[in-house]
Amino acid sequence: MDIIKETYEKIKNMEIRGAGRIGRAAAKALKEYALKISNLSEEEFKNKMKEAGNILISARPTAVSLPNAVKYVLKGLNEENPKEKVIERADEFINSSLKAIENIGKFGANRIKDGDTILTHCNSEAAISVIKTAYDEGKDIKVFCTETRPRNQGYITAKTLYDYGIDVTLIVDSAVRYFIKEIDIVVVGADAITANGCLVNKIGTSQIALIANESRVPFLTAAETYKFHPKTIVGELIEIEERSPEEVTTFEDKYKGIKIRNPAFDVTPAKYIDAIITEIGLIPPQGAWYIIEKYFGWLEK
Amino acid sequence: MDIIKETYEKIKNMEIRGAGRIGRAAAKALKEYALKISNLSEEEFKNKMKEAGNILISARPTAVSLPNAVKYVLKGLNEENPKEKVIERADEFINSSLKAIENIGKFGANRIKDGDTILTHCNSEAAISVIKTAYDEGKDIKVFCTETRPRNQGYITAKTLYDYGIDVTLIVDSAVRYFIKEIDIVVVGADAITANGCLVNKIGTSQIALIANESRVPFLTAAETYKFHPKTIVGELIEIEERSPEEVTTFEDKYKGIKIRNPAFDVTPAKYIDAIITEIGLIPPQGAWYIIEKYFGWLEK
Amino acid sequence: MDIIKETYEKIKNMEIRGAGRIGRAAAKALKEYALKISNLSEEEFKNKMKEAGNILISARPTAVSLPNAVKYVLKGLNEENPKEKVIERADEFINSSLKAIENIGKFGANRIKDGDTILTHCNSEAAISVIKTAYDEGKDIKVFCTETRPRNQGYITAKTLYDYGIDVTLIVDSAVRYFIKEIDIVVVGADAITANGCLVNKIGTSQIALIANESRVPFLTAAETYKFHPKTIVGELIEIEERSPEEVTTFEDKYKGIKIRNPAFDVTPAKYIDAIITEIGLIPPQGAWYIIEKYFGWLEK
Amino acid sequence: MDIIKETYEKIKNMEIRGAGRIGRAAAKALKEYALKISNLSEEEFKNKMKEAGNILISARPTAVSLPNAVKYVLKGLNEENPKEKVIERADEFINSSLKAIENIGKFGANRIKDGDTILTHCNSEAAISVIKTAYDEGKDIKVFCTETRPRNQGYITAKTLYDYGIDVTLIVDSAVRYFIKEIDIVVVGADAITANGCLVNKIGTSQIALIANESRVPFLTAAETYKFHPKTIVGELIEIEERSPEEVTTFEDKYKGIKIRNPAFDVTPAKYIDAIITEIGLIPPQGAWYIIEKYFGWLEK
Amino acid sequence: MDIIKETYEKIKNMEIRGAGRIGRAAAKALKEYALKISNLSEEEFKNKMKEAGNILISARPTAVSLPNAVKYVLKGLNEENPKEKVIERADEFINSSLKAIENIGKFGANRIKDGDTILTHCNSEAAISVIKTAYDEGKDIKVFCTETRPRNQGYITAKTLYDYGIDVTLIVDSAVRYFIKEIDIVVVGADAITANGCLVNKIGTSQIALIANESRVPFLTAAETYKFHPKTIVGELIEIEERSPEEVTTFEDKYKGIKIRNPAFDVTPAKYIDAIITEIGLIPPQGAWYIIEKYFGWLEK
Amino acid sequence: MDIIKETYEKIKNMEIRGAGRIGRAAAKALKEYALKISNLSEEEFKNKMKEAGNILISARPTAVSLPNAVKYVLKGLNEENPKEKVIERADEFINSSLKAIENIGKFGANRIKDGDTILTHCNSEAAISVIKTAYDEGKDIKVFCTETRPRNQGYITAKTLYDYGIDVTLIVDSAVRYFIKEIDIVVVGADAITANGCLVNKIGTSQIALIANESRVPFLTAAETYKFHPKTIVGELIEIEERSPEEVTTFEDKYKGIKIRNPAFDVTPAKYIDAIITEIGLIPPQGAWYIIEKYFGWLEK
Repeated sequence: MDIIKETYEKIKNMEIRGAGRIGRAAAKALKEYALKISNLSEEEFKNKMKEAGNILISARPTAVSLPNAVKYVLKGLNEENPKEKVIERADEFINSSLKAIENIGKFGANRIKDGDTILTHCNSEAAISVIKTAYDEGKDIKVFCTETRPRNQGYITAKTLYDYGIDVTLIVDSAVRYFIKEIDIVVVGADAITANGCLVNKIGTSQIALIANESRVPFLTAAETYKFHPKTIVGELIEIEERSPEEVTTFEDKYKGIKIRNPAFDVTPAKYIDAIITEIGLIPPQGAWYIIEKYFGWLEK
Repeated sequence: MDIIKETYEKIKNMEIRGAGRIGRAAAKALKEYALKISNLSEEEFKNKMKEAGNILISARPTAVSLPNAVKYVLKGLNEENPKEKVIERADEFINSSLKAIENIGKFGANRIKDGDTILTHCNSEAAISVIKTAYDEGKDIKVFCTETRPRNQGYITAKTLYDYGIDVTLIVDSAVRYFIKEIDIVVVGADAITANGCLVNKIGTSQIALIANESRVPFLTAAETYKFHPKTIVGELIEIEERSPEEVTTFEDKYKGIKIRNPAFDVTPAKYIDAIITEIGLIPPQGAWYIIEKYFGWLEK
Repeated sequence: MDIIKETYEKIKNMEIRGAGRIGRAAAKALKEYALKISNLSEEEFKNKMKEAGNILISARPTAVSLPNAVKYVLKGLNEENPKEKVIERADEFINSSLKAIENIGKFGANRIKDGDTILTHCNSEAAISVIKTAYDEGKDIKVFCTETRPRNQGYITAKTLYDYGIDVTLIVDSAVRYFIKEIDIVVVGADAITANGCLVNKIGTSQIALIANESRVPFLTAAETYKFHPKTIVGELIEIEERSPEEVTTFEDKYKGIKIRNPAFDVTPAKYIDAIITEIGLIPPQGAWYIIEKYFGWLEK
Repeated sequence: MDIIKETYEKIKNMEIRGAGRIGRAAAKALKEYALKISNLSEEEFKNKMKEAGNILISARPTAVSLPNAVKYVLKGLNEENPKEKVIERADEFINSSLKAIENIGKFGANRIKDGDTILTHCNSEAAISVIKTAYDEGKDIKVFCTETRPRNQGYITAKTLYDYGIDVTLIVDSAVRYFIKEIDIVVVGADAITANGCLVNKIGTSQIALIANESRVPFLTAAETYKFHPKTIVGELIEIEERSPEEVTTFEDKYKGIKIRNPAFDVTPAKYIDAIITEIGLIPPQGAWYIIEKYFGWLEK
Repeated sequence: MDIIKETYEKIKNMEIRGAGRIGRAAAKALKEYALKISNLSEEEFKNKMKEAGNILISARPTAVSLPNAVKYVLKGLNEENPKEKVIERADEFINSSLKAIENIGKFGANRIKDGDTILTHCNSEAAISVIKTAYDEGKDIKVFCTETRPRNQGYITAKTLYDYGIDVTLIVDSAVRYFIKEIDIVVVGADAITANGCLVNKIGTSQIALIANESRVPFLTAAETYKFHPKTIVGELIEIEERSPEEVTTFEDKYKGIKIRNPAFDVTPAKYIDAIITEIGLIPPQGAWYIIEKYFGWLEK
Repeated sequence: MDIIKETYEKIKNMEIRGAGRIGRAAAKALKEYALKISNLSEEEFKNKMKEAGNILISARPTAVSLPNAVKYVLKGLNEENPKEKVIERADEFINSSLKAIENIGKFGANRIKDGDTILTHCNSEAAISVIKTAYDEGKDIKVFCTETRPRNQGYITAKTLYDYGIDVTLIVDSAVRYFIKEIDIVVVGADAITANGCLVNKIGTSQIALIANESRVPFLTAAETYKFHPKTIVGELIEIEERSPEEVTTFEDKYKGIKIRNPAFDVTPAKYIDAIITEIGLIPPQGAWYIIEKYFGWLEK
């Protein structure tokens, strides 16, 4: 159980961050756990695995990649040789996740033109894959990264792209509207996509989308299909995680009493999203529910 | 000259911040300087004072209260007994500035209803005067303050209001659109108002105005009339000060090479502003140029 | 034929109202009629039934549930044992209609949060199902009902919800924009949904949607899939029924000569609709045509 | 005091309705009251008159024509021969009010083109003056009137225009968006105009303005300058009168418990108003505060 | 090869214009070429045909009907009896193209009401089919045609419709916003449709759509499904052809040095398009990618 | 009378074009005519001059500079020595017109930044003055000119700027939305400004303003104050001149029967105009009526 608990902790405290990485970490933990536990009846094995899955899922509520990864892996429990199957499916999930990010990079890079300046927010594997691929294709690009308060993941994005050789500028989150006229395209990641085409992503994303829309700058989100949220098709609202105030600031005594609210995500409506870049192609946000039906199964099933 | 240089430094490094405080500090410095320099011919006195004025004006380029204060005080140089006059006018400016903030508080508080939740940005004397006056009138209010990166002036505002007994919540700048549905009214200050009704204020203001407009939340700016920018009537653009990257972050060596852009202000268009609260009444933003004509004199003059 | 004529009359004069109830009443009438007519050749039976269907369909032109119900039932005429089949299909339609309203209630209630204030218009079974289900789930909700001139169906909705124990407020249709800032979500029914995602519903619906959109309040429509209009896929416009002026007012002689126009429905464009709640899930309005293709068959068929 | 109380009652219960008529009725009552009371010291006369004025003003809170009329008349109390002056000023107010409506008719009619279809809401003298003048000029016009729930003043407007020979169509308030494409221009009256150019008028006006704006149909308000609200210049919010639920409906016992909200007015923002037609010319809504300054005196005064 | 080169030339210099006509011309050229070349091995035949296809495709870059037609025809190369198959498929393409235009005419005409005034731009077979069909159905219609600079294809459309008996008015491209209030519906053709529902069509189309949207006038595009661009699903941007400056004007020497830019197409976003009229039905623009998946095959294939 | 008739003709057939040039030409004609006619009684002189003024005014209906110039000059008839006065005032008008254009150039150039790309439409002296002044100040600018169908005045503007050394690109009117993202600012002239801040200018201007607004590109109009239309303050609509179809095209016989509509101007609403650049300063469009009041006199006068 150590590997499960450890992964749970790392996801919870954001040592492991990013919807894709979280999904793969969960799959990997399940695989390792399955390999470790032995001398169990099939029944016991299944119960242990389900318990492990539930623990992992409880680490963070918003990014749907987490339950989607766990469900994908644990589907093996219903087949013959559940242990083998679970291990096999964990590898499958991890590989297809990595492959998805590669494909998204290619499809998304097709939308980047030589000379473009790109804005990104937070630290998204998929969005970075788009930017790096465009750079690899020899396009002369510039990137603006927002700080992404309160955890400043924008610094990591800036560092990653800068180390890759790309021209990077860092700005505070408040400066997006000031610079938007210099931006040709916005590309961000996704924590979840809803049935009616909304994007749940790092706090601040929805105001960037609004700003881009005001100046007619295309706004794209890069999202592997395991980020499409199946339960939204039955109307469920995605829970927005509210994290510790201490991520924002740790007030000294003098400030004690000032409340701090720290929601980690917000919701961008479909009307501000030009397209979702998935590993199976670029779709309009209103196509999300069809993906959910086709790839996750419709209600009845 | 020490007092002038010292004031210049404090304004430049933002030890003295806020358009009203800057204006009053400049007036005070000119008065003290005038008191100190003696044994000068009238000619020499005038030249010294003009030189002092120019130094002060050069401290920061955007907030128009600075040149407006200096011009107001130095107008005394053209009268009889210039020294006396300059000192008198410096006091006048300071007093009328304080009185203006009091009046703005009263007029603005009329717009706050019992039970309202107010959003403010940065740290504006005039906006705080509105909020405190509403609170003094016994209204049950709540206030949301943004951090206001990069210098986090929102913390000062939060502290000031909290110490006054007001219910305060602090949020990151990126969370405005997330919380806007809980906000009844936005009140911010002003660094300058242009002839066609635009507001120049702390970076991030314009995106808050855009967000408020999307959700039909009234957006008001509290601005003493000495923040109306006379030169915009001849089409001059207000220079947006770009401050040191180190205000955003001081990257260690590993980050060296990542560019940082740090504009201190942005421009909010008239169409997103419901009203400007001035000490002589509440006006639509399109009335700004009339104020400029009436109180600062038209072109020819 | 009496049962057909009677049902026709009740639908026409709005004794039977509401798209779902109309569909079920038509199915029920066809079933009872099929049971009554006997001693007929299969040919005669079929002709009688088709004639009955046409009469029913002619009762009102806009709500597509009426022809969809009739077509659903009469499809049985093409099978063996047409009489049995017709009766069977009538029951099927009625049951699936009731089940659909139950499912819509569940899915829609997922979108209602504890503490929400809901606005509804006219008198929709499906919308009421959403509201009641949310209430049954223990959520603390309030509901605003519009009068819904000229027939004041809002009074029936208000009464129904009030009798159910819900906190209800009635307002005139003109007061929607005045109160919209107190509303968290709008839920209305549907008379028909077009291939490009437009909603045909009680007159006044489209201006409520416009008002909700101006203040960023989510607007949802609850619509069983038999309200999706198959002919709109070939571009047919849905006829908007214009009813008797006397529904608005019966002017005495002194007013004679003043014209009265009384359209019963209007069209809400897809861009103002956040989602359609159907019994098979919550979809973006632009997904309507796919439902039409999948459940009603594409052009060729 | 009878004449004052009687007028107070008639204004309160809306026997006397319409901002202009209310203002003139108040002026007339003050004149008649002044004529009646005799054998009083000047001091006593003034006190009586002030008391009478306060009673009249308290009849209804929203239409600013009422206090403006009272103030205009009672200004005579500060002059020599206060009784004579008050009577003189009452006549002046009444005459200038009638003249204003005539001028507004002429200026507004210039905006009506031959063949136009005009939409109006509620029952406004000034708006009717515009329509009648256009008709008198020989223009071939049609008019749509809304019912204007809950008191159906639209019926009176329809009757007045119909009796004048004009082609009139009556519609329910909910049908405005349905018919707006047939409308060339919207003309409504005003209960008050604020310093930042907002229009306070009969409930439903603001949604008509929103609908007109969505379809690029010009929206004009006809407002005598005594409808401009001086206190809004110091930020005061205009109180929106909420009238008896019984104006909406008198529920029988079975409905008891359903709440009814009945606000009589709403606020239309300046951005949806193309122009205000006043007796001194046609102005943009943002010019309202200048009228207030010029005609009512600025703050200091 | 003559027939191929000749067709290539005619397409390139716009002797053959219009996305449908170009597609059919390419199919016809391939058929004739296939018929001509003989005494070749199957290998040689295939190579020759592929070469011919590539030449044709290179004639113009934007209209996707051209590569779609070529691909459709050359798919026959992979079957038995490639020559026969290619010829058969060329006929198939031509016939289905003509049939598609007929069906689009019928579906689109359903959207035209008696008395409507229609605006069209450039010279589109499919849009003309819609207009003619509405006219054939006995509807009383009027048509406004834009000049469509620089090549004035609007004159051809005007002539075609006028000769057909329709009431036609020609206007300059700049006058669209002036006349839009007289227009009931806009119908244009398409050079390509992207996966996220954008329309690529003759330069000027996107500003007509923007203008129509501002006045709430429905904007439809008539597009055969072979105009849906398969590669946009992998994010590829459609190349916008920039044609010779001489199409705009041939400046004499005095003007030499003035640059001329002459893009032939622009991109209309999905949000300004009410529906796409295809031969298989009327769909919302966001349904385009589903058509691409269903009729052209998804990525993998 | 020859000079009057000749000038009338040149204005009518657009040999003399541009609102400023037309005004000065009228002033010059009146001066020359006044110089020529002699041996007349003062009465006869006045009548002759008034007649001449009326003829000139009738040449074109839209540009208000024409009646404003005539009125300015003929005001001299009411003074002593009417002949002298008229001549004096004609010179005054001409000189102040030229001076106004120079000042507008200076004020407007303040809004142009180094590196800006400017879009202009038609051929405006005042807009060209802004562009040339920015160029003279050493700013590195580029200019896009539209053709401006049907008379192609854009070619003249392109030529003028090109000859001045400026980098000029010509595009068709339909290509504005395609290129708008490369444009930093739009500057056009004015034929008339209305009391509520609308701009009457060359056909096509209003759609350029709409397009600029969609992409957040500032749109400015350069207008001497004699282009502000005094009669709009009493609600008069400005007549939009509709010119000969032959300006668009002279169809051969085959096209006979196709109607051509050729309005010369359209109306841009205030909300799309960032500022009006006048010779007395830069104002918001909503300030226009104040200029009319201040410089042309209010209603009573």
